[in-house]
Amino acid sequence: MCLLTGLTSLLASGVYTSAYPLHDVSITLLYEQWANYSVFYKYQPLGLIRKYFGEKIGLYFAWLGVYTQMLIPAAIIGVIVFLYGCATVDDDIPSMEICDPRNNITMCPLCDKACSYWKLVTACGTARASHLFDNTATVFFSIFMALWAVLFMEHWKRRQMRLNYVWDLTSFGEDEQDHNRAEYEFRVTQKKVKQEQRLKQIWKNTLNVLLIRAALHMSSHPVVRYNIRATVKTTAAIINLIIIIILDEIYGAIARWLTRLEVPKTDKSFEERLIIKTFILKFVNAFTPIVYLAFFRGRLVGRPGNYLYVVGSYRMEECAHAGCLMELCIQLCITMLGKQLIQNNLFEIGLPKLKKMLRKRKTELDSGQEQALHKKLYEKDHLLGPFVGLNPEYMEMIIQFGMVTLFVASFPLAPLFALLNNIIEIRLDAKKFVTELRRPIAVKAKDIGIWYNLLRGLSKVAVIVNAFVIAFTSDFIPRLVYQYTYSPDGSLHGFVNHSLSYFNVSDFNPGTDPLQPMYLGYKVEICRYKDYRDPPWSSTKYELSKEFWAILAARLGFVIVFQNVVMLMSDFVDWLIPDIPKDISLQIHKEKILMVELFMKEEQGKSFAARNRQSSCVFCPVSLPSPPTSHGRWLLLPEPASARGFSC
Amino acid sequence: MCLLTGLTSLLASGVYTSAYPLHDVSITLLYEQWANYSVFYKYQPLGLIRKYFGEKIGLYFAWLGVYTQMLIPAAIIGVIVFLYGCATVDDDIPSMEICDPRNNITMCPLCDKACSYWKLVTACGTARASHLFDNTATVFFSIFMALWAVLFMEHWKRRQMRLNYVWDLTSFGEDEQDHNRAEYEFRVTQKKVKQEQRLKQIWKNTLNVLLIRAALHMSSHPVVRYNIRATVKTTAAIINLIIIIILDEIYGAIARWLTRLEVPKTDKSFEERLIIKTFILKFVNAFTPIVYLAFFRGRLVGRPGNYLYVVGSYRMEECAHAGCLMELCIQLCITMLGKQLIQNNLFEIGLPKLKKMLRKRKTELDSGQEQALHKKLYEKDHLLGPFVGLNPEYMEMIIQFGMVTLFVASFPLAPLFALLNNIIEIRLDAKKFVTELRRPIAVKAKDIGIWYNLLRGLSKVAVIVNAFVIAFTSDFIPRLVYQYTYSPDGSLHGFVNHSLSYFNVSDFNPGTDPLQPMYLGYKVEICRYKDYRDPPWSSTKYELSKEFWAILAARLGFVIVFQNVVMLMSDFVDWLIPDIPKDISLQIHKEKILMVELFMKEEQGKSFAARNRQSSCVFCPVSLPSPPTSHGRWLLLPEPASARGFSC
Repeated sequence: MCLLTGLTSLLASGVYTSAYPLHDVSITLLYEQWANYSVFYKYQPLGLIRKYFGEKIGLYFAWLGVYTQMLIPAAIIGVIVFLYGCATVDDDIPSMEICDPRNNITMCPLCDKACSYWKLVTACGTARASHLFDNTATVFFSIFMALWAVLFMEHWKRRQMRLNYVWDLTSFGEDEQDHNRAEYEFRVTQKKVKQEQRLKQIWKNTLNVLLIRAALHMSSHPVVRYNIRATVKTTAAIINLIIIIILDEIYGAIARWLTRLEVPKTDKSFEERLIIKTFILKFVNAFTPIVYLAFFRGRLVGRPGNYLYVVGSYRMEECAHAGCLMELCIQLCITMLGKQLIQNNLFEIGLPKLKKMLRKRKTELDSGQEQALHKKLYEKDHLLGPFVGLNPEYMEMIIQFGMVTLFVASFPLAPLFALLNNIIEIRLDAKKFVTELRRPIAVKAKDIGIWYNLLRGLSKVAVIVNAFVIAFTSDFIPRLVYQYTYSPDGSLHGFVNHSLSYFNVSDFNPGTDPLQPMYLGYKVEICRYKDYRDPPWSSTKYELSKEFWAILAARLGFVIVFQNVVMLMSDFVDWLIPDIPKDISLQIHKEKILMVELFMKEEQGKSFAARNRQSSCVFCPVSLPSPPTSHGRWLLLPEPASARGFSC
Repeated sequence: MCLLTGLTSLLASGVYTSAYPLHDVSITLLYEQWANYSVFYKYQPLGLIRKYFGEKIGLYFAWLGVYTQMLIPAAIIGVIVFLYGCATVDDDIPSMEICDPRNNITMCPLCDKACSYWKLVTACGTARASHLFDNTATVFFSIFMALWAVLFMEHWKRRQMRLNYVWDLTSFGEDEQDHNRAEYEFRVTQKKVKQEQRLKQIWKNTLNVLLIRAALHMSSHPVVRYNIRATVKTTAAIINLIIIIILDEIYGAIARWLTRLEVPKTDKSFEERLIIKTFILKFVNAFTPIVYLAFFRGRLVGRPGNYLYVVGSYRMEECAHAGCLMELCIQLCITMLGKQLIQNNLFEIGLPKLKKMLRKRKTELDSGQEQALHKKLYEKDHLLGPFVGLNPEYMEMIIQFGMVTLFVASFPLAPLFALLNNIIEIRLDAKKFVTELRRPIAVKAKDIGIWYNLLRGLSKVAVIVNAFVIAFTSDFIPRLVYQYTYSPDGSLHGFVNHSLSYFNVSDFNPGTDPLQPMYLGYKVEICRYKDYRDPPWSSTKYELSKEFWAILAARLGFVIVFQNVVMLMSDFVDWLIPDIPKDISLQIHKEKILMVELFMKEEQGKSFAARNRQSSCVFCPVSLPSPPTSHGRWLLLPEPASARGFSC
């Protein structure tokens, strides 16, 4: 302990630049059997990893392995659900009705002045595409994924228990690792963080300016706008993604700064607080656009003649018919693919490589070219990047887990994307640990700590989020309500017409009616818009109709039922699967008995050998596992208390 | 173990009639300090109880003590909520409006033919009374009680941990108690159960006949019926209670029978399965009438002119204005008071006393009068009843816990009733254990087992049940909706009128209109009924109105918000409070270190003394707590694996 404190302060005062254990020869074995894309289909050599890097890193890779493995069934079912959507797209009555040009429905303009009336049939493409993600199978898939999350947690608990047993950690107390943190880190990293922050602020400003210019450029051509709608959305999603990645780094710095302000007592509590803060910030960052698309976009728009304006004169964005779900899909798809590609390749592999090169160049310049060939091992390792902890790795995976479970109702391919990413991620992380980083100091750990709680919290939140996505983002409930109450023949025929309200174009506020009213080639008197409101000829015109409230009640009722049923099922699964595998608990029990027997034999032998020393009582007050009591349920004893335990 | 099996089979074959440990002198101490009403304000002497009866019974009384103690704040807040209701009853605008004779509202008849129209002002009493239990404070009280339940669970977990430490159970494995159960019990008790069942069937039949007669008798006087409404309800609740108590016993037998059919392997799994089944049956039994009153009564009645009839011609029951909540209160009140009084006094004290007397008489008859004076101790104890386990005691308390948490929104005095009952219950149970029962065999236990899970489950269910009671049983949501959307001046003035629909008496189905239409002294054309339906002059007359759907949506929205907010707060409280008290965990940690040091010293001494015996390695493979590793985070070591643990 003294040595450590000494080292810490020597490092802090700059006497030493760094202290690290050295890589050794077993690294080649790890490289061959683990950090190699060609072995991606094999289990990881966890024993080797643990032996070389310590339990904490071993547990991370074990967890990553279990997660990836569990993604396989989820990905398969997800693909089946998607294929079911593809197969039934031609039988979907609402999209058939939208695509049928005989249903000559004229829609109200999507923006003031510049936009004109449009034909519903032009939304045929999005309607058909959205069916791929919004069908009955999706509902069952999101129930499945909620249970999958619980199963995953249970499976991991058991695996962790097994690893604990195999790695002989069952009796290892977590608090043994709990050092008080020195002021060291505070002093050393503060400067660095500030520089990073300044750099990132500049980046962000530059990007924001570019982004706004691009958006302005695109919106200045009103005629081509409708056609390039999808392109714009995709571009917007990509820009969004870039901003997310940049903000991510900034938020990380903010979380570190906030936690440092708190000055927590121990290393462990510092780490936990930092993780929670970083998690919340990064999570909000990653999911804000998705939540906006899923729940707010196209909802708070008002109605024709009485649109909602924000900040003076900006009308709230609307979606094309069935378009919000499609946009959500695009956003999820790009976030998942892009974030992973960019973050993995650029930040995780590219940056360390770059830093290594820079460091190498610097050392070479310092010490002259000729010495480079016969360098010592610790000099070589000094060129590698320092190990900064597992938190970024875990964080990335947790955000991915969030994507997979939270919005699975709107994007059933998410597990597949996650699976493909993780197969690469395992080997990528392995490569990084083996070739790019200094050898980390081995740290013991019994479990994955706070990450388990975060996973658990996420899988709980996932249930309610999925319930809301199905109830409010998809058309599942309105369709059901139409089919069972309003439909004349119990089918979905007429649903599209029923879901559109009427608007009399003479009720437009002055100055908001389209500049090109004859765009479609005829004079429009009544246009339609997607909402449940009373028609112009009703006494309560444009008020929310009875159907609106009935469907809202159905949606909310669905949320309650879905949430409680899934929670009940999850609790049941949780209760059904024992936390400790049967064979392990038997083994532990056996060993305990064995140990007690040995202990008693030894004690007996001792008391025989040296009865006068009376050393056999020393162990009594401390909490040794007491020997199994031999009294049972039917002993005829006048004083049962004396039959219990062995007395001192 | 052999001795036990031998005894079991000897008992089964009838060689011995019974086997039990004997009471001893410490019973007088227990009687003075514990089983005595005069010490009700003192903590229980848990150490003494544990020493005399064993850990399992000690834990039961500890749990009962913690539960009773936790009820004190709940009871105080409950009384405050009730007093708030009392204080604000005169300011409650809806009941003022109902009681105001100037609001001359004529209500539709409550039953076919025999009932006539009635004035809303006659419901003044119930309206005022229901305000006592249905006001804003109730909502906060039910949130409070949901958090209270979590706090109680947490508090108990910590208390249990402390007891485990004090009673030296921290290293006691639960499975050490797990014997395989013999066919013994199967053979011995089967006959007895059958006899009991037959007896109870006869009881039930007799009571059902009586009940039906009483009901018939009461309903044959239509004129006095309205006045004796409350009396009838109270009588019904009492009869209901009696049936519940009787069915309880029957269900207990059914659960035993079902579990015996399953033939579980061990005693522990037998007990757990039995408890779960008994719990479900008893719970359903106790809560069916309450759930019916809270959620179904007066809801599925149809509307005037189109009532819902079941089994031919029975119209579904209606409540008087604001009457369902009152009936729920009466039912809860009588169930809680009555069940506890009857079950406590009759079943728990009366029956054992009676049995003891009978057994005494029998023995005296068998052995002659003269020997009674100088009897041996085991003969005296033989007169006492056998100990049948703690399950009935726990079950009773869990059902009470259910009453306290599940329907607290409709009866804020429940915690007070429970508290008063439990203060008596503790001493009553103590008396029973000390004076009426044979001394039970001491059994070790670390926790209260399955009961903890049941409690946890109940407190989860309580959240959703309370949400539904507030949303659907009380008028809380309709009032809020009225106040914020329909009310012209933002107050509740006009709420009563708004909540009543109109009915044109000419729309009565033939044969269902009142026989005495002029009962009120004038001709009625339009009568009112409590529902949200379109008026007779609307184009969609008597259909559910837009208000109905809007209020339904608000109710469901409230359920979602309430459930999730309370669950979040509960999880937060759960996460905030550590499961193990700080001082105990420190103490355990210290002792562990102490033990490891001792162990290592001893091992060292041994290996010095007899280095050639090499006995120091024997302990390595078994899972002894490994000594604290001395490596930290900054050791400069080429091979970190060797620094970990102590090698063998």
